Amino acid sequence: MDLDLIRRLSIPAETKVVLCVLDGLGGLAGPRGRTELESANIRHLDRLAREGAVGLTIPVAPGVTPGSGPGHMALFGLDPLVYDVGRGVLEATGIDFPLGPHDLAARANFCTVDGDGLITDRRAGRVATEITAEICAQLREIKLPGVEVFVEPVREHRFVLVLRGEGLAEELSETDPQREGVTVPPVEALAPSAQRTADLANQFVAEARKLIGGRAQANHLTLRGWAHRPDLPQLPELWKLRAAACAIYPMYRGLARLVGMDTLDAGTNLESQFAALKQHWNDYDFFFVHYKYTDSAGEDGDFDRKVRAIEDFDACLPALLDLRPDVLLVGGDHSTPAVLASHSWHPVPVLMSGRTVRADAQHRFNETECAEGGLGIFPAKELLPQAFAHAGRLTKYGA
Amino acid sequence: MDLDLIRRLSIPAETKVVLCVLDGLGGLAGPRGRTELESANIRHLDRLAREGAVGLTIPVAPGVTPGSGPGHMALFGLDPLVYDVGRGVLEATGIDFPLGPHDLAARANFCTVDGDGLITDRRAGRVATEITAEICAQLREIKLPGVEVFVEPVREHRFVLVLRGEGLAEELSETDPQREGVTVPPVEALAPSAQRTADLANQFVAEARKLIGGRAQANHLTLRGWAHRPDLPQLPELWKLRAAACAIYPMYRGLARLVGMDTLDAGTNLESQFAALKQHWNDYDFFFVHYKYTDSAGEDGDFDRKVRAIEDFDACLPALLDLRPDVLLVGGDHSTPAVLASHSWHPVPVLMSGRTVRADAQHRFNETECAEGGLGIFPAKELLPQAFAHAGRLTKYGA
Repeated sequence: MDLDLIRRLSIPAETKVVLCVLDGLGGLAGPRGRTELESANIRHLDRLAREGAVGLTIPVAPGVTPGSGPGHMALFGLDPLVYDVGRGVLEATGIDFPLGPHDLAARANFCTVDGDGLITDRRAGRVATEITAEICAQLREIKLPGVEVFVEPVREHRFVLVLRGEGLAEELSETDPQREGVTVPPVEALAPSAQRTADLANQFVAEARKLIGGRAQANHLTLRGWAHRPDLPQLPELWKLRAAACAIYPMYRGLARLVGMDTLDAGTNLESQFAALKQHWNDYDFFFVHYKYTDSAGEDGDFDRKVRAIEDFDACLPALLDLRPDVLLVGGDHSTPAVLASHSWHPVPVLMSGRTVRADAQHRFNETECAEGGLGIFPAKELLPQAFAHAGRLTKYGA
Repeated sequence: MDLDLIRRLSIPAETKVVLCVLDGLGGLAGPRGRTELESANIRHLDRLAREGAVGLTIPVAPGVTPGSGPGHMALFGLDPLVYDVGRGVLEATGIDFPLGPHDLAARANFCTVDGDGLITDRRAGRVATEITAEICAQLREIKLPGVEVFVEPVREHRFVLVLRGEGLAEELSETDPQREGVTVPPVEALAPSAQRTADLANQFVAEARKLIGGRAQANHLTLRGWAHRPDLPQLPELWKLRAAACAIYPMYRGLARLVGMDTLDAGTNLESQFAALKQHWNDYDFFFVHYKYTDSAGEDGDFDRKVRAIEDFDACLPALLDLRPDVLLVGGDHSTPAVLASHSWHPVPVLMSGRTVRADAQHRFNETECAEGGLGIFPAKELLPQAFAHAGRLTKYGA
């Protein structure tokens, strides 16, 4: 749905809509011939499927495996092919770094080079996160003309570089050569307007080398994924509502903030997440709840752990159902089949529950039944408009 | 399907295609847990569903509730987000007013103001239609420079104002303040090019006040929904065929005329509508039959009456089947679930019957089976091209 049409048709209401994202929810048949969802004992989700409608969402496009950014943009109702969240931004977001409108972020890695400047280890031996934090603290001393410099550790050899200042450009080359035995190339401007930014980046690297070049390990760095904070449509403005994210992992809080959601103190597990919803139930109209463990188990190729993660979610669901949301969505940002041990392009099971949702013939929440569900197989970005329609938040088009 | 592609691929043929629109056909489960269609005894429609294919149409976009205009544009194969029929045009169309290319139409209401010009009743006490007709006759005396003026009663306090002349603009403000105790504002030009039209409109209102200002009731008027007759693609030209509408209610005849259909004398019920089809069977290639009572019952929240309206349609169907159309479509312009007593955003059941239609596994014509039907869940504008393909009216694309 066109965003201008949403702006035109959306109306305020008293209703509550909850979107639960089970990260990497979709699966594939495992050793016993059933998918993770088909193997799980999920009586609450099955009941919602029986009373409501199910379907499959296509996050980006048929055949396309989404990263977390595009997968979530689609569930937030935004076309992930239009609204792109750069990797540097995602990395900064993932450590809760408060990116401003003039910030340029890059994913950075410490690496190790030899006396000739040739890379001997692209990941600096996966140096300990604490060491990376210490080196980052050193690098924060670097002064660049006209910009503020932020250097923030992520994990192991990974860190984030943020340059803050007017007129910075993201059209910059990446400096990780993706192999060893070669030198780290300089940052190059990919557009004439990016020359100053490239110079600043190279100056940062040169200063950094003065500070850490003497180290045996982690004595150099590479820079990738240069990106500005994207100027994304804001859900509160689009839909005339108050939106809150309840996510444990910072990347998902960050993605939610990028589209205008407030973030709640989610605690450390689903119980505390649903408790936070209860506490703030009257403060917001739309809640996004993120659940990570389906994806982590899938990424680890651990079929049974993914099944258990799904069952754990199901077991916690009554606390959410007690709040009586007007419309409840349960879906995923992408599939992460345990048998593939990675994100995949498979459409993702989704269910919609609410008073005006037209029940379909499906009785269980899994890939096979969702493929025949009343919601159809449809672009994920079309999910939220339907939910808000069921919540009485979209008025009629035309006379 | 892109209209240029239709123009390129469409070919004449001897076949007959009939589109039956059961207004507001789609429903929701009522008190007994079944939808209106699921509750109805419809052996002819069920047989067609068994022999043919069913599906669900999305009139405008997922989650969007269509008005009658957009709902029909989509069934006529036109994107309702591109081809917009303004409210003034729809109102004029609804009283069979023959809008010309230079006509600017507005929905008008008589209202009552007090001695200070403050609105005391926005609907003038829902003044009787006969009185409105009399006042309209008075207002027809008004002369405006360079334009012809038409003032036509609709019902109760509602009437239509049409200004006919070159260079009129529709970028005009609406003058119904939507509340009482305030004055009726003047028409304002929303674009510089609309200033002359705004002046003419205000001159009309001033002249009208001289004529009716002395009345106790219905002594002023408000104007809304300014619109030109849209320049819509014409089905006969697009599809190389002769098209006729067989509708009892003027609004639907008007919508059909806007896309180039002739209108038949439809009489007052389905029997006379199908008799008209029989009479003109050799004169046209495509027939649009409109059936209103499913929607009126739904709008009234009368579940059982909607069920009966569906059954009545089914009972009349043999008269149409006797004509042996090559392709028969039965669908709706939108859903009007009786439990909601209003138009809704839910996808609409549709069935397609014809010699080359690939039968699906569905055996009944209702929401649940249509959700799993062979036609899928698809934009309503894609229905007609498929029907014309089955009618041998689309040639091959590419070698």
